[in-house]
Amino acid sequence: MAYGLLKGKRGVISGALNEQSIAWKVAALAHGEGAQIVLTNAPVAMRMGEIDNLAKATGSPIIPADATKDEDLGKLFAEAKQALGGPVDFVLHSIGMSPNVRKARAYNDLNYEWYKQTLDISAMSFHRMIQAAVKQDALADGGSIVALSYIAAQRVFAGYGDMADAKALLESIARSWGYHLGQQKRIRVNTVSQSPSKTTAGSGIKGFTGLFDFADAMSPLGNAPTEDCAAYIISLFSDLTRYVTMQNLYHDGGFSSTGATPMVVEKVSPEE
Amino acid sequence: MAYGLLKGKRGVISGALNEQSIAWKVAALAHGEGAQIVLTNAPVAMRMGEIDNLAKATGSPIIPADATKDEDLGKLFAEAKQALGGPVDFVLHSIGMSPNVRKARAYNDLNYEWYKQTLDISAMSFHRMIQAAVKQDALADGGSIVALSYIAAQRVFAGYGDMADAKALLESIARSWGYHLGQQKRIRVNTVSQSPSKTTAGSGIKGFTGLFDFADAMSPLGNAPTEDCAAYIISLFSDLTRYVTMQNLYHDGGFSSTGATPMVVEKVSPEE
Amino acid sequence: MAYGLLKGKRGVISGALNEQSIAWKVAALAHGEGAQIVLTNAPVAMRMGEIDNLAKATGSPIIPADATKDEDLGKLFAEAKQALGGPVDFVLHSIGMSPNVRKARAYNDLNYEWYKQTLDISAMSFHRMIQAAVKQDALADGGSIVALSYIAAQRVFAGYGDMADAKALLESIARSWGYHLGQQKRIRVNTVSQSPSKTTAGSGIKGFTGLFDFADAMSPLGNAPTEDCAAYIISLFSDLTRYVTMQNLYHDGGFSSTGATPMVVEKVSPEE
Amino acid sequence: MAYGLLKGKRGVISGALNEQSIAWKVAALAHGEGAQIVLTNAPVAMRMGEIDNLAKATGSPIIPADATKDEDLGKLFAEAKQALGGPVDFVLHSIGMSPNVRKARAYNDLNYEWYKQTLDISAMSFHRMIQAAVKQDALADGGSIVALSYIAAQRVFAGYGDMADAKALLESIARSWGYHLGQQKRIRVNTVSQSPSKTTAGSGIKGFTGLFDFADAMSPLGNAPTEDCAAYIISLFSDLTRYVTMQNLYHDGGFSSTGATPMVVEKVSPEE
Repeated sequence: MAYGLLKGKRGVISGALNEQSIAWKVAALAHGEGAQIVLTNAPVAMRMGEIDNLAKATGSPIIPADATKDEDLGKLFAEAKQALGGPVDFVLHSIGMSPNVRKARAYNDLNYEWYKQTLDISAMSFHRMIQAAVKQDALADGGSIVALSYIAAQRVFAGYGDMADAKALLESIARSWGYHLGQQKRIRVNTVSQSPSKTTAGSGIKGFTGLFDFADAMSPLGNAPTEDCAAYIISLFSDLTRYVTMQNLYHDGGFSSTGATPMVVEKVSPEE
Repeated sequence: MAYGLLKGKRGVISGALNEQSIAWKVAALAHGEGAQIVLTNAPVAMRMGEIDNLAKATGSPIIPADATKDEDLGKLFAEAKQALGGPVDFVLHSIGMSPNVRKARAYNDLNYEWYKQTLDISAMSFHRMIQAAVKQDALADGGSIVALSYIAAQRVFAGYGDMADAKALLESIARSWGYHLGQQKRIRVNTVSQSPSKTTAGSGIKGFTGLFDFADAMSPLGNAPTEDCAAYIISLFSDLTRYVTMQNLYHDGGFSSTGATPMVVEKVSPEE
Repeated sequence: MAYGLLKGKRGVISGALNEQSIAWKVAALAHGEGAQIVLTNAPVAMRMGEIDNLAKATGSPIIPADATKDEDLGKLFAEAKQALGGPVDFVLHSIGMSPNVRKARAYNDLNYEWYKQTLDISAMSFHRMIQAAVKQDALADGGSIVALSYIAAQRVFAGYGDMADAKALLESIARSWGYHLGQQKRIRVNTVSQSPSKTTAGSGIKGFTGLFDFADAMSPLGNAPTEDCAAYIISLFSDLTRYVTMQNLYHDGGFSSTGATPMVVEKVSPEE
Repeated sequence: MAYGLLKGKRGVISGALNEQSIAWKVAALAHGEGAQIVLTNAPVAMRMGEIDNLAKATGSPIIPADATKDEDLGKLFAEAKQALGGPVDFVLHSIGMSPNVRKARAYNDLNYEWYKQTLDISAMSFHRMIQAAVKQDALADGGSIVALSYIAAQRVFAGYGDMADAKALLESIARSWGYHLGQQKRIRVNTVSQSPSKTTAGSGIKGFTGLFDFADAMSPLGNAPTEDCAAYIISLFSDLTRYVTMQNLYHDGGFSSTGATPMVVEKVSPEE
């Protein structure tokens, strides 16, 4: 795929950890579509170093930033604007982590300091990113901002724990910013609610394989691959979608609109 | 249960076929809560005769009416008003039938004459009932109208066929009427989206047992029993809910907000 | 815009009446993006003749078909397949008409024969188109089908009358077909819920200007222009969105997620 | 109203500040319906003292608790269980406050320490209350928990600021707990999304009168009064609603399902 959809556009992409990451694929595709990009990640996540390969492949600078620190984010957007030679047309937020989920604290036994971290890292960071960018006057008029979400924001998936609450918060932040940035700068803000994905983030969840298989069996098209998710996000960054804003957009092979499939029903109730 | 919630209220209840029917249970409960009611059903459905027992037990007249015929419905509400000694405070629509589903015509091979019948019987009949009642000036100010729906209106359940489309139409009709009747007569109109139920209607669906078991395993409280559905509908007819209108209300043990349960996931993906 | 997004793809586009039509713009853009297309419209709508200009400009054959007649639709897809040299990759349904709205019959005084026509023309026609295409084996694997909808399917807009119900039905049909075609042929089916548009269809609604202005004042980006709607639909026909299915997608400048704007609130409550 | 709907039930009600409070009205009604209750509020809120009148009128002990402090909440439920002579059947969460809104910090210029307080006070407190109650084994099987929300959780109302995000988080917490408590103890958890209300909380919002008037003009039944909201909550605490769970329930006179009303459209676009 190489249509030139992002020719002349400048973007900031967070969360590319390794080749499995959706953010990684978005960066590669955006580059292929003609965009100039800046990569960013938490300093701690970057030590693993794979992101250097992506930076080389796409000719992109890396600007480390802890997404829970306003000064890091201010610096990120100030430097990105400079590195890119102008204001940013698109931003990808792909950041999420729950200490409670990682440490297998059940939802009815949450550690609230960790809960606050979950919300700060996975949702407030989205507000912080945008506010920092606005304060640096680093966003171009008519731009597009996307954050990655999951349907646990609407329906309960037991293993997903307090990340569900973080995603609900994230989606609300997208709507709120979409309103303000739409009126002020014609920038749109959306979340993409993606199928379970075999990324580093996904596999951190206990029972992930089960969830993945279940979602696959409940989706008429099967789970959406991460490559396709990246392509979809490119469409949201492009001028094809200039009036789509404040939406949570399911990229899930139809899972969200499917109530039951024979494949699953038969497993639950085999005798009939 | 006997709180006197419907003391002095008058109602019309359609769709009580036999003791399993939700409408039957609503009628019995409404009577117990102090309401006077009129029962109605299609002439063809009434030949089976069980409704006479309900009429006796609740001291209610039966007024047959084909819900696809405006003159029948006009007569129904004119007579109901007279029999009840005043305008009607609540109405239950519990009518649905799909020739395509009955005759196992798949959704990708619909007979369109039957499809029109599905829509007419299961959804347009709701519009007709209300319009007939309005034309007879048979609805009391501040009243409450409820129709029974199912979550197939929002998500696809393969076996439910064109009834899904009929329920989506039904829910839209409820919203539209809720707007008009709210402004004109402070009447509220809602749909109740009930768990799969082992009623005559439910069991007409191919693969119903599987669907029932699946929904049960996917609902934190299990499938909602029809008795409880009737109690819920009583609350919607009562003065406890005077500002709830134009809503589709899930009475489903949590099914609609549950994405996956371990019980189901394990069956689909046992190895983990 | 000319990215080559639809290079090698074949499509059928209904509903292009004149230069204002969204379908017209979709056809022009699709052609520009490299697709071969067939235009179709109701024989009665085509007498006005403007569609010939579009046919010339895009090098497309016109195949008349009444979307409420199965044999017309069967012929349409049989001939389209032949004219295009292969099965159809994308289909646009842009058909809607309500005799009740046209003749200013209020929602609480519907003519039910007209209501049935509203549903048949505006919603069932979508089912018929797809079923006819399936029966002609005229749909390519991995294709994309879009129908145009409006938010009246979810919320009441008084002047929109029974078209609201038709759009709710249309969206349900999209979900149902999306399920079946997804499983069988990896085809996706979605509806696009567009801002009020100054098209022939739009302006048929009484009080349309008021509705247009209100929606504009309630949308952070303002009402979405029809050109942008066409571009969005191109993205849904392209390979950028291969796992988006069974969705109702708002292309509305943020209207659907906006509760109130100062501009509107001040007009309603000026004193504060 | 005095039906005996809550006879023999025990409840904990937070947030009754003065006679305007919804919580105050819930407490009074719950008492009238036969429940025994415990009142709770933040120590700082209680200094104003009006709650004593409510306590006297309903024969209820007051147990102060800061809803952001787990030890306070643990003590609250331990003592409530003792004071009530058994485990708690129903809980009302009616707590919300945003320092950003209070101090008129716009959404695009949030103070993040205050944002964290908004989330902690208005949403996390709901999780804390339930977790504390569970840890004290203070919840009766088959009980009902309700929190008050607002439609800003789904759609943007400019003046509502970061409280919108808090309400989205609150509703997610309700779903998540509803899942766990439903499976473990058949307890249901819901949020009630109420019309703008002239309470102390409501009037803290800048531009509240405008919002109130706008919502009133956009609701077919007008804004729902707080008395009716209290009655609705009683229905959710009663045995009439035993299978309604994990829902956000609009008590709003139809606002949420209304797209436009002539009254509002005419003000925005008067000329037509």
